[in-house]
Amino acid sequence: MKVGYIQNYPENGNKEANFQQVEKILGDRKADLIVLPELFATGYIFENTDEVRQLSEDFTGETTQFLYKMARKTGATMVGGFVEFGEGKAFNSVACVSADGLVGSYRKIHLYGREKKWFSPGNKPLHVLEIGEENDWVIGPMICFDWVFPEVARSLALLGADIITHSANLILPYCQAAMITRSLENRIFTITANRIGREQKAGLDLSFTGKSQIVNPNGEILSTAPLDEEYIDIVEIDVELAHDKQFTSMNHLFQDRRPQFYHLR
Amino acid sequence: MKVGYIQNYPENGNKEANFQQVEKILGDRKADLIVLPELFATGYIFENTDEVRQLSEDFTGETTQFLYKMARKTGATMVGGFVEFGEGKAFNSVACVSADGLVGSYRKIHLYGREKKWFSPGNKPLHVLEIGEENDWVIGPMICFDWVFPEVARSLALLGADIITHSANLILPYCQAAMITRSLENRIFTITANRIGREQKAGLDLSFTGKSQIVNPNGEILSTAPLDEEYIDIVEIDVELAHDKQFTSMNHLFQDRRPQFYHLR
Repeated sequence: MKVGYIQNYPENGNKEANFQQVEKILGDRKADLIVLPELFATGYIFENTDEVRQLSEDFTGETTQFLYKMARKTGATMVGGFVEFGEGKAFNSVACVSADGLVGSYRKIHLYGREKKWFSPGNKPLHVLEIGEENDWVIGPMICFDWVFPEVARSLALLGADIITHSANLILPYCQAAMITRSLENRIFTITANRIGREQKAGLDLSFTGKSQIVNPNGEILSTAPLDEEYIDIVEIDVELAHDKQFTSMNHLFQDRRPQFYHLR
Repeated sequence: MKVGYIQNYPENGNKEANFQQVEKILGDRKADLIVLPELFATGYIFENTDEVRQLSEDFTGETTQFLYKMARKTGATMVGGFVEFGEGKAFNSVACVSADGLVGSYRKIHLYGREKKWFSPGNKPLHVLEIGEENDWVIGPMICFDWVFPEVARSLALLGADIITHSANLILPYCQAAMITRSLENRIFTITANRIGREQKAGLDLSFTGKSQIVNPNGEILSTAPLDEEYIDIVEIDVELAHDKQFTSMNHLFQDRRPQFYHLR
């Protein structure tokens, strides 16, 4: 299975330019799964909820259409972030789209900082999506700040995810190292697609930390992107590795759990 | 509050020699909390359950007595590992002892590898202990392989732990980095007291990885020990830092949790 990510530098508010730039970065690559950053086509900072609403779409919108076009071009299932308009609300979501159409989506359940003013928090449980021609690859979508809650990767792994798709707009330096722990503690692949660049808008001044990465279930980094350059990487993985939850010959990471002694209300 | 750890090289099976060595490492240090490794006075490898039984003790035994003596000498609450005999079984436990006597204990709930042949798994829920003259410092004891289960540190933090005491006999290279994530994701202090040296016995050949460490709630390493030397370090911490669960001004790590959307059976 060939999996990868795109690390881009979106122009705030200019979807069409960002689609073109992502298409250029993709070139003629082929893959089975490609992850794009959170809000990869809108940029991160919004003036107000009016602007959020204006840039929002449903699953017939231009971002899902663009992901569909790229899925047909690359052969890959594409996962990328956008502002979802649904149920009269705006969510910070990802769409998962294959050459056959929409596979599924996820609404970010842990909003970061000012996002709480812009978006409604995700209102559906964490869930996994089956992708590939045989529907035998299981991905678990999460978004950016979800990384800090160990319950997210754990839930997705317990639901059967082989690969966590982690669409991100990271500004703090902690996440990339933490994702190694997320891979190890769940024996899953993690693909963090981060953005680069800086946004100064609405009184905020944010610099994004790049360093998108792919980690395998042994905690080994298979790919790491530069801090400040647009980038794409696609690597071959053996997804079966994520089915083997033996941390040692005598320790199965899931069977060894002792939920009756935890306190996780 | 002054907290620290001892990193020792126990002689397998020779408790008296190990007590003397730990007393020598302690010297005339004073502190409020000192964490010792898992099984710090027995060594790690056992020939069989007869030997485990022979080295086991209850809370009137010589290890608890030694910790009591050291608590009176240092002024610190001492947390250290031993083979606990209780309910007709042997547990891989820590005792927590102050100058006033036994504060509490913890039986390791996630046994690693061959330990499953030597010990019974802990049969009580994760819990915290109040220490200090005012009982206002809250510690959460865990042992070695517990680190890989994010539920352990999370449970202890949700129960109110300011500091996780992590008595360990680590042989793999992953834990020290993971404990930075454990501190960050829960905004707690973590003190990992690891051992050094090598044991060849009963068909096993294990080298322990040292690098005991203290991490603060911001994920900053306050102390790190050498790979292969006996060591002690005591640092001053502001325990209040662990009461502040704001990851950002708009993100409270516990209040932002969305348990209704997790899948943690």
